[in-house]
Amino acid sequence: MSVKTVQKLIRPLVRKLHPYVPGEQPKIKGLIKLNTNENPYPPAPAVLKAVKNATDSRLRLYPNPTAERVREKLARVHRCSVDNIIVGNGSDEVLALAVRCFAEPAAPGLKKGAKRSRATVQYFHPSYSLYPVLADTHGSIRNDVPLLPNFGLPAIGDLQRNGWDFNAALTIVTTPNAPSGRGYSMRELDRLCRKQRGVVILDEAYVDFAEENAMALALKHPHVLVARTFSKAYSLCFQRVGYFVGNEELISALHRIRDSYNVNGLGQIAAEATLENLGYYRKNFARIIATREKLSRDLTKLGFRVLPSQTNFILAQPPLWPAAQWLEKLRAEKILVRWFSQPEVKNYLRITIGTPAEAAKLVERIRFLLRKG
Amino acid sequence: MSVKTVQKLIRPLVRKLHPYVPGEQPKIKGLIKLNTNENPYPPAPAVLKAVKNATDSRLRLYPNPTAERVREKLARVHRCSVDNIIVGNGSDEVLALAVRCFAEPAAPGLKKGAKRSRATVQYFHPSYSLYPVLADTHGSIRNDVPLLPNFGLPAIGDLQRNGWDFNAALTIVTTPNAPSGRGYSMRELDRLCRKQRGVVILDEAYVDFAEENAMALALKHPHVLVARTFSKAYSLCFQRVGYFVGNEELISALHRIRDSYNVNGLGQIAAEATLENLGYYRKNFARIIATREKLSRDLTKLGFRVLPSQTNFILAQPPLWPAAQWLEKLRAEKILVRWFSQPEVKNYLRITIGTPAEAAKLVERIRFLLRKG
Repeated sequence: MSVKTVQKLIRPLVRKLHPYVPGEQPKIKGLIKLNTNENPYPPAPAVLKAVKNATDSRLRLYPNPTAERVREKLARVHRCSVDNIIVGNGSDEVLALAVRCFAEPAAPGLKKGAKRSRATVQYFHPSYSLYPVLADTHGSIRNDVPLLPNFGLPAIGDLQRNGWDFNAALTIVTTPNAPSGRGYSMRELDRLCRKQRGVVILDEAYVDFAEENAMALALKHPHVLVARTFSKAYSLCFQRVGYFVGNEELISALHRIRDSYNVNGLGQIAAEATLENLGYYRKNFARIIATREKLSRDLTKLGFRVLPSQTNFILAQPPLWPAAQWLEKLRAEKILVRWFSQPEVKNYLRITIGTPAEAAKLVERIRFLLRKG
Repeated sequence: MSVKTVQKLIRPLVRKLHPYVPGEQPKIKGLIKLNTNENPYPPAPAVLKAVKNATDSRLRLYPNPTAERVREKLARVHRCSVDNIIVGNGSDEVLALAVRCFAEPAAPGLKKGAKRSRATVQYFHPSYSLYPVLADTHGSIRNDVPLLPNFGLPAIGDLQRNGWDFNAALTIVTTPNAPSGRGYSMRELDRLCRKQRGVVILDEAYVDFAEENAMALALKHPHVLVARTFSKAYSLCFQRVGYFVGNEELISALHRIRDSYNVNGLGQIAAEATLENLGYYRKNFARIIATREKLSRDLTKLGFRVLPSQTNFILAQPPLWPAAQWLEKLRAEKILVRWFSQPEVKNYLRITIGTPAEAAKLVERIRFLLRKG
């Protein structure tokens, strides 16, 4: 069989896909890694201990298929029922499930109207670059509408003018926004949710670093789901645990289409222990926020235009050289940050907030590069 | 919003789904659990040690997105390239990906012909009951054709007569078969593969307990994938690691549609360490096979009709009472086995091979129940 014949075994839709490109995970010694918004602090000692203690003969058994104890503890934290929660293999999995659960696949070139809306996955740009990938993978129609130049939410009237669809099957809002770090108030999110007739996901991956969260909207509006993750704020990227909170009919539909044992056992153990040790993490949030504010001031003094951030990263426009060039210069200094080629953000660097020492090193190296010229 | 209005937010396809029902994981003290084909022996001590040693600050970092080191080690074991391998969150995930990658979703009632074939997921019955669920979830057409009464593969000519589709987009064969335990020779699988024009998956979840495997077919035929899992033979259900081996074009297409970080980090660590300790597991396979043969003989003496098995479970037709009644009687004795209501197997119990002590206890309790009458 020739390569061409083999390729014909693959769905035409899949052949055309461009997959999501995750940030690099290079193996460079002594690297300061500020490119994928990981938490600089380890999980709580009690979490590591719980995982080690569970690493025994039980690994031979299937994990709980619904992450029952994690959901019980989350239900207590969010003051809802276990039926309002689905846990996934990272929030990426629950987002992918939502696209397959609420949006129809569609033939390309579908005209405007109800049928098109039912196949539409809608989001702002820039936001999490996974959403268009999920829509394409499912064969749905993407509808992206620009945020304001300051990354704020457009007024409802402007939305309509810019092709926003209030009937879209699924709308996903990254709040606080990534990659800008901009926060949105519950009031403005509520206003948007009230206008949407399809499902709305508020993707709160970074919300623990923000002043406000919108969890109340998921418990108030039956068509609103809030996505959360243990990866960022809870230092658990490695173990892939994320979840949705929302209406039990929607949650039950999502359960129906997930893999039977979608959340690995040690991830469940780690998430349970995390929820017993929230005090440890809250202290880390405060430290990260303090580092963020200091780094923002320091970079501003060096001529960077730093956007206000409600997350564990900042978006900053560097002086003197284009952002893409800064990426390389910092890499040569063994500091990895992230740069995106999309027009709205191509003049910026996205910098994860590390430890105070990492932030100091970054500032020192930037000062050095600027002096060297 | 009423419940009915909320339900309208869910795709009609999803509203109608019946999810896969996994075997029970009850929390009964002293229970002998022979219902989900888990391995009675723990992972190798070196595997537990590797997982514990990795439970440190790295949990805050993303795992390798392609399970690179697991694939490197698997490539050495199977004598292929890393490009021939995709690792998933259990083999359930790679099976689900394959359905979405190779079979089109289809409007119901699609007539015969090429279009129907491209939307067809095909398998024998009885086999792994997840396949129809995956087909339904994706909106594909299921085509199931019965195995012979002794659970052997029908002759090619009989297949055609029974509605088998040699052009089906995706065909999945459980080999050795579940729930019967029947093994198939590479020669007969090769004969079937040669006739199929779509993708064929040989689901070898239980193959380490069999006399023959068909891995060579995945490396010979570009349209054949072999599915394997660390769950059963390698005592790692808890951590969700499974994989496909096959043609690099097909594997690359599957990579394109998976979640970016689909395999949790400690699962990768555990799988890597497993592949460094295969001798430990091979000894366990021999023990399990010996227990299987002894249990089969013991149950035969007690009047059970035990089918020959190439797996870590047996399918056995009990005497005196219907199988469903035996399920309850054994449960009352704190022994959990599995019973399926499908007509072809409803007269059987599926019994996982546990330790020799568990098998002895099972035989002893069955003898007791028979005597009690």
